[in-house]
Amino acid sequence: MSSHGIVLFGHGARDPRWAEPFERLAARLRGAASPAAHVSLAFLELMTPTLGDAVAAQVAAGCSHITVVPVFFGQGGHVRRDLPQLVDACRAAHPGIEIRCATAVGEDDGVLDAIARYCIDQIDGNA
Amino acid sequence: MSSHGIVLFGHGARDPRWAEPFERLAARLRGAASPAAHVSLAFLELMTPTLGDAVAAQVAAGCSHITVVPVFFGQGGHVRRDLPQLVDACRAAHPGIEIRCATAVGEDDGVLDAIARYCIDQIDGNA
Repeated sequence: MSSHGIVLFGHGARDPRWAEPFERLAARLRGAASPAAHVSLAFLELMTPTLGDAVAAQVAAGCSHITVVPVFFGQGGHVRRDLPQLVDACRAAHPGIEIRCATAVGEDDGVLDAIARYCIDQIDGNA
Repeated sequence: MSSHGIVLFGHGARDPRWAEPFERLAARLRGAASPAAHVSLAFLELMTPTLGDAVAAQVAAGCSHITVVPVFFGQGGHVRRDLPQLVDACRAAHPGIEIRCATAVGEDDGVLDAIARYCIDQIDGNA
């Protein structure tokens, strides 16, 4: 059976606590996505694994389709320039695997709505 | 009448398109929040205004309570170390104004749920 991989791709940071929301997000996805889906984290810098290592591990685990989701707010240089190069390298390393790249999560209306709701809760609770 | 300000505080980037989701978020908040609330953007680096300039503009516009919301996924060095120093400087510059700082938006369960939903849509639409 072919299975689908999701790689949550974040920037990375020096402080290990920075990754906590990414780990919570991955845990949520493991509970919510189809049982055939694998969920991994990967980072651009300062944290591991790299995108290449995360994709290789999903291929080794039997994933034939991999979707990379940039967990970034905006589509700046990291998402527009660095990430496509990394994804191209993954495709070249795994020619039989379909590797897609989603738009950054911060561009999604549902995500923006949730952030707006959070902001409003901050002032309603403290007005 | 005293009014409340919200400052959406982001990292900033070289690519001006990076700020688009922040502008969409501010527009949503201006539509959704109480008419007495002012909504501004501010950036840590590479983009303007600074937090200090955004807070000064809200004070000049009559805000007596200002809530700074870090639009960051994780609580890394920028949120744990740089932002408190910037907020302290704002408080020192505007002693009569209540300036609060929220937890980073990426720590909120509702935001994480929305991101998880977006990720699942990516694989459902392309399985």
